[in-house]
Amino acid sequence: MKWSKIHLFTQKEAPSDAEIPSHKLMVRGGFIKKLAPGLYTYGFMGLRAIRKFENIIRNELDKINCIEILMPMVHPKELWMETNRWNEMGAGLLKFKNRNDHEFCLGATHEEAIVDYVRHDLKSYRDFPKNIYQIQTKYRDEIRPRFGLMRGREFSMKDAYSFDMDQAGALKAYDQMYEAYTRIFNRLGLQFRIVKADAGNIGGSQTHEFQLLAEAGEDALLVSDKTAFAANIEVCPAIDAIPYQSKEKEFKATEKFATPGQKTIADLEKFTSVPANELVKTLFYSANEGFDAKDKSLKAFAVLLRGSDEVNPIKVKNFLKLTNAPRMLNDDEVREVSGAAPGSCGPVGLKIPVYADNGITNLKNYIVGANADGFHLKNVNHERDYKAQFADLRMAREGDKCPDSDGTLKAYRGIEVGHVFYLGQKYAQKMNGVFLDKNGRSQFYEMGCYGIGVTRTVQASIEQSHDQDGVIWPKAIAPYHVHICLLDPKDEALAQYVDKMDQALTEKHLDVFIDDRDERPGFKFKDADLLGFPVRVVVGKKGFDADQIEVVNRKTKEVHKVTRDQVNQTVQKVLESL
Amino acid sequence: MKWSKIHLFTQKEAPSDAEIPSHKLMVRGGFIKKLAPGLYTYGFMGLRAIRKFENIIRNELDKINCIEILMPMVHPKELWMETNRWNEMGAGLLKFKNRNDHEFCLGATHEEAIVDYVRHDLKSYRDFPKNIYQIQTKYRDEIRPRFGLMRGREFSMKDAYSFDMDQAGALKAYDQMYEAYTRIFNRLGLQFRIVKADAGNIGGSQTHEFQLLAEAGEDALLVSDKTAFAANIEVCPAIDAIPYQSKEKEFKATEKFATPGQKTIADLEKFTSVPANELVKTLFYSANEGFDAKDKSLKAFAVLLRGSDEVNPIKVKNFLKLTNAPRMLNDDEVREVSGAAPGSCGPVGLKIPVYADNGITNLKNYIVGANADGFHLKNVNHERDYKAQFADLRMAREGDKCPDSDGTLKAYRGIEVGHVFYLGQKYAQKMNGVFLDKNGRSQFYEMGCYGIGVTRTVQASIEQSHDQDGVIWPKAIAPYHVHICLLDPKDEALAQYVDKMDQALTEKHLDVFIDDRDERPGFKFKDADLLGFPVRVVVGKKGFDADQIEVVNRKTKEVHKVTRDQVNQTVQKVLESL
Repeated sequence: MKWSKIHLFTQKEAPSDAEIPSHKLMVRGGFIKKLAPGLYTYGFMGLRAIRKFENIIRNELDKINCIEILMPMVHPKELWMETNRWNEMGAGLLKFKNRNDHEFCLGATHEEAIVDYVRHDLKSYRDFPKNIYQIQTKYRDEIRPRFGLMRGREFSMKDAYSFDMDQAGALKAYDQMYEAYTRIFNRLGLQFRIVKADAGNIGGSQTHEFQLLAEAGEDALLVSDKTAFAANIEVCPAIDAIPYQSKEKEFKATEKFATPGQKTIADLEKFTSVPANELVKTLFYSANEGFDAKDKSLKAFAVLLRGSDEVNPIKVKNFLKLTNAPRMLNDDEVREVSGAAPGSCGPVGLKIPVYADNGITNLKNYIVGANADGFHLKNVNHERDYKAQFADLRMAREGDKCPDSDGTLKAYRGIEVGHVFYLGQKYAQKMNGVFLDKNGRSQFYEMGCYGIGVTRTVQASIEQSHDQDGVIWPKAIAPYHVHICLLDPKDEALAQYVDKMDQALTEKHLDVFIDDRDERPGFKFKDADLLGFPVRVVVGKKGFDADQIEVVNRKTKEVHKVTRDQVNQTVQKVLESL
Repeated sequence: MKWSKIHLFTQKEAPSDAEIPSHKLMVRGGFIKKLAPGLYTYGFMGLRAIRKFENIIRNELDKINCIEILMPMVHPKELWMETNRWNEMGAGLLKFKNRNDHEFCLGATHEEAIVDYVRHDLKSYRDFPKNIYQIQTKYRDEIRPRFGLMRGREFSMKDAYSFDMDQAGALKAYDQMYEAYTRIFNRLGLQFRIVKADAGNIGGSQTHEFQLLAEAGEDALLVSDKTAFAANIEVCPAIDAIPYQSKEKEFKATEKFATPGQKTIADLEKFTSVPANELVKTLFYSANEGFDAKDKSLKAFAVLLRGSDEVNPIKVKNFLKLTNAPRMLNDDEVREVSGAAPGSCGPVGLKIPVYADNGITNLKNYIVGANADGFHLKNVNHERDYKAQFADLRMAREGDKCPDSDGTLKAYRGIEVGHVFYLGQKYAQKMNGVFLDKNGRSQFYEMGCYGIGVTRTVQASIEQSHDQDGVIWPKAIAPYHVHICLLDPKDEALAQYVDKMDQALTEKHLDVFIDDRDERPGFKFKDADLLGFPVRVVVGKKGFDADQIEVVNRKTKEVHKVTRDQVNQTVQKVLESL
């Protein structure tokens, strides 16, 4: 393909709303262009990368007998009411009324749609297993879209759904998909981690995320330095590397003392000279998720943590079996349940459920808020002074103990590009997904669901693979493999030579792009670096006449000066080395 | 591919909402499945046909340097306000507010989006020509979706847009696309007509529709029996085959007479014994299109036609340069402007503009309503008794004269599958689409837009190509070329033979489908006919042992009984004959 034949305009400057390298480079290279916040047009080159990645996905899913269909993007409300996710999904689900005043949403995920698709067909144990996928545009009504395709409103996803007779079958489907995903991301040749994860409001009890590593990643990962253990911080068990043991021997008598103006843990640490990890903080939440519009009750509860720890809202959600992370109470609500402002609250005397992080277990004679403004209590002890249910509720952190060895956890940042969920019978039960087993008994089937963010992966690849000059495309999804800078496009001999090279490389199933614009060499080289195809070939009159052509490896910038006859072979060698 | 590996369930009965054969067959064959009215899931086989058609389109557009991109499906209101089509598009444009209360629509067409995409890049005459397309899901908020994919809410379209410096360039791009479309539809091997058409609210002065012929088609076409003339009835000039000439010599004096209870032309014909084609009917419309919410004026006008003719609202729209076909006045509004009920109205004394169809030109001393309930006037004559502007406003019909020869028009029904529009500078002017020409002067560029209904074409193909037993897929988009009915799937020798056949035919780039289900032969044959792949091969133990295998042409039902060795060759021969 020749530059002159397509619509491609690169930009020197990144737009002001682009914060991370991949977003800047995608816009500068013309791979994407913003129509409105979170809404991007995929340009000719960007679409080629997306299509190549789609085809890798198709190829690997074919191998595990996962078949492709395409479901509608617009869904009727009635469908989402069957699972109550119409209410549970939150504001990210875009809802609208049509001209007949019927309610619809833009599909953010397709569990309901796929169950509706199969439920009148899957009637017998002979109809299993089934594994079905689609590659479809999805919409999520992000409040503040950012990072280009990484957190956009409209994006492309591959979503697959497995149907099995029993749990064993479903877990086998899960493993197959896990392996297929591993192959898919291996084919990109990029660094990724597979981590334990939270199921969010999709539901399900076993779930892993595929995370491409990148500093700008929105997800925090913790990975063992000894074993295969890896988890999203949201679900990573928190275990102190050195278990805390209080030096106090006996329970002392509780004492109220004035702490005027001491509102934060940092204040208190300074004021009392007690280290933060021996102080206890009290947080307040509501367990009312608002699904029942008539129920306005607060359903307040308190969470206790050491002053040095951070609460993990996902752990709280899962411990209390909520659908979404709970909402923190505002100051008025905190006063309503504790009698004091947030800085002066504690568990003693509360009339609401109290949950304490495991880190508190071995504390003794500690300080908490007194539930009176400007006062705290010292020498407080659980069991004696208040009752709490203990659980792992804090955020794990780098340096914590590995949960399945004596190793240590290391921190990484990742971009979630794939997610596999074992769903069990959740959707089948809610949507009457039943079949007759071998004994003629009616059973609910078991499901799994499996997503890959197609457009997000393409950008994440760039986020991991670029330098200051531009993109460094992974070979597998590079829009073109070879970028020929034709420096004297009007020279007949050069043009012919390049056309021949194009033909020969195309026959070897390589994709060749020719910059035949009437521009200066430096300008062309800059654009070649920006566009970032794996191999660059420089064909100018001088080199051509001297029988010395430059073949450049985009990633290493290594230059091979070879004769005209050796170019094709060199191009192939460089590509093979990647 | 084996039936046992995919999700495919055929149905004996068509759903009650399926009115036309293609809709019934697509649902019965599992090619599509309804999620909600106008919203369909494309099954494994349906999607294969769609993808094959998409690739034919891509292949032909590549040849004319039309490059592929992908624009968002969701557009911000601001974009559509630039052309005012936010208001002009009518209720078919689905609008919604997001969580931040910003207004958006689901793209029904992408002229605004593409101009926004290119307008900051196309700055110089050197940047032209450009021709860009996408294949994207579109949404149209149909009040009453029907006919499956033919008039659905969500559907897939290929839309292309050309950008040229001047009209000559734009018309060349138009011609290139016209030729590419001709090749695309020729490759389907189906009957189609290219007809002159109306531009609707897209705008533009030259436009053709590509119509697949089918009885169930929603469009009426008129085609010359002598020349290449073909037009959608919406824009077909109406010329009487035998020009009417009144026998009256002189103008007679106008006379009011009572016509109690005579409301329709049929009533009046009977009551007065004057034939319908010598009576004149008066219709009333509003030219206020409602784009300015503050302007509540009626902007009424009257249209006169012979009693035997039908008004053509598109001709009225175009004659008055309206955006959409005008709204007819209701009875109260008619009384407001005429003083009488609709059955008793006429042009004499009206204070509003009167437009008369050319068919009235040669009438003399005719009857019209008296604008008084229960009365008509006789011996009325235009010019003498009222003023009117004459134009071609009636619906043409079969038997009318061919506009460019002495031939006659014949009627066909068609399904619009493609549409090419020359747009001129309409969008460039409204959206500031300017470039600097060779002389450094700022100019608006010229555009064309070109659509193909992808999913609609697939269904229209079936509408034209089927029989009472099922689909007869055109070879070019058949989900599979060969359908092997493996009658004894557990027989090792048969299974091996079929696998070899699969392999050999696949190497010849043929797509092979194997019905390996444990079902009776008759059942399998019925499904093979329903699915409608071009060639069926029947492999059963009896035939295999007797070295006599059946190869059946789905279309002609011709059966070839050949030896095992001859099967592949016979399959290829039958396919070549199609």
